[in-house]
Amino acid sequence: MSLTDLRQAHPADAWKANRANLWNQPTSGICHGYVQANLVMLPAPAAFDFLRFCQRNPKPCPVLEVTDPGDPEPKLIAPGADLRTDLPRYCVYRKGELVEERTDVLDLWDENMVAFLLGCSFSFEHLLMDAGLPIRHLEQGINGPVYRSNRECVPAGAFHGRLVVSMRPLPPERVAEAVEITAAHPDVHGSPVHIGSPEALGITDIDRPDWGETVRFEAGDVPVFWACGVTPQQAAMESRTELMITHATGHMFVTGLRVDQSLT
Amino acid sequence: MSLTDLRQAHPADAWKANRANLWNQPTSGICHGYVQANLVMLPAPAAFDFLRFCQRNPKPCPVLEVTDPGDPEPKLIAPGADLRTDLPRYCVYRKGELVEERTDVLDLWDENMVAFLLGCSFSFEHLLMDAGLPIRHLEQGINGPVYRSNRECVPAGAFHGRLVVSMRPLPPERVAEAVEITAAHPDVHGSPVHIGSPEALGITDIDRPDWGETVRFEAGDVPVFWACGVTPQQAAMESRTELMITHATGHMFVTGLRVDQSLT
Repeated sequence: MSLTDLRQAHPADAWKANRANLWNQPTSGICHGYVQANLVMLPAPAAFDFLRFCQRNPKPCPVLEVTDPGDPEPKLIAPGADLRTDLPRYCVYRKGELVEERTDVLDLWDENMVAFLLGCSFSFEHLLMDAGLPIRHLEQGINGPVYRSNRECVPAGAFHGRLVVSMRPLPPERVAEAVEITAAHPDVHGSPVHIGSPEALGITDIDRPDWGETVRFEAGDVPVFWACGVTPQQAAMESRTELMITHATGHMFVTGLRVDQSLT
Repeated sequence: MSLTDLRQAHPADAWKANRANLWNQPTSGICHGYVQANLVMLPAPAAFDFLRFCQRNPKPCPVLEVTDPGDPEPKLIAPGADLRTDLPRYCVYRKGELVEERTDVLDLWDENMVAFLLGCSFSFEHLLMDAGLPIRHLEQGINGPVYRSNRECVPAGAFHGRLVVSMRPLPPERVAEAVEITAAHPDVHGSPVHIGSPEALGITDIDRPDWGETVRFEAGDVPVFWACGVTPQQAAMESRTELMITHATGHMFVTGLRVDQSLT
């Protein structure tokens, strides 16, 4: 199956393709117009800690849906989907270490497991582009840079860790517009956490991101930092969480929500 | 201690007065300018169900803070307070029945208990009044009417129940303004769930509320319904929850958040 097949597909077709292992590529560009989401799966006791972590850190962890323990179907935003099989690629963390990447997690799921879908910045980039704002990493055809900041998230139970941020260079006269647009969409990380001065966030070399690729600044561009959905992985690592399953980078879950409906 | 003593008090003084049992009256009008909150306390397993219930029903259950199991201090929005003693009056529900009202819950609290603070409409009434909108029940010096609707909340684990709504009559030319103002404040129930037509919400006699008092309409007034913080009590009753502790009606928790800071 090729990207062309899925570009205009309904999410249910993408779920089916993933389930049949006919698609295991990054999801950027598939199912045009539908919200994509970060996935986190945890056993129930850790899941309650994590839900409080999300409640206390809504910018990095905007919750779109949490399933009941043992229920792999996100009934509200993707009825009919099965989160154990319907993503192209998963990462398995044990005691905070990435131990495995795989294409389904059927055998790791049991009646205690809880799945979280968290808002992802693909959707707000869509809105920024609609407003004619330049997204440098897309212009340059690379994955945007992501950094571990020096800022501690508010802990919850066993979960603690530093805030992870994505960065987009923007022309100084358009920064305010980017703030206004993203502030209106708390479900996909909301407004920036930091503008300018990477040093103050503990980032000593902007050209050496911790995840993603180095983006080229145009003359005058200001670095604008948003909270990033990689924050839960960072928390799992720092907290040495017994078991956490996530999507693999860029291999998101496509929800049944339309971007224009849902981003309120 | 009189209302005059607490009208301009800092929340910490109200906490102290409650703790010493010097104040056990409704909190309307005390600690001017500070956000008041609904309280819900549950043992940990039910608490995880309830937090998912809140996530799925954010209009009736806007979460301001959830404490870690066993920790009675809301460290983020009221550091220094103790939720076991610092409200004037509590209700204890067992298997969904109100069994007791009391002035502290020290002996019911243990290392499994979790406390939730939920946004309350006192704060958005403040904003409506600032905009010059008439609040009929305040003009008439009564408690506003509250109804059990026919609308089911989205269930979560053991929690299910009908949506409870508060109603405020508004002049037809000001309804849109009330929507705009409250829509901007999802932390205190957000925009109305229903405007006009009480019958469609299952309310057959608008003059017989399930809680609160009958409010008099002025000529032309339209009934405007908002999701109400009594919804968790209704869910506890319908779900026959083993143990749930709440504030007593009108006897709220005063947080350390200022209305002008927090309502974003």
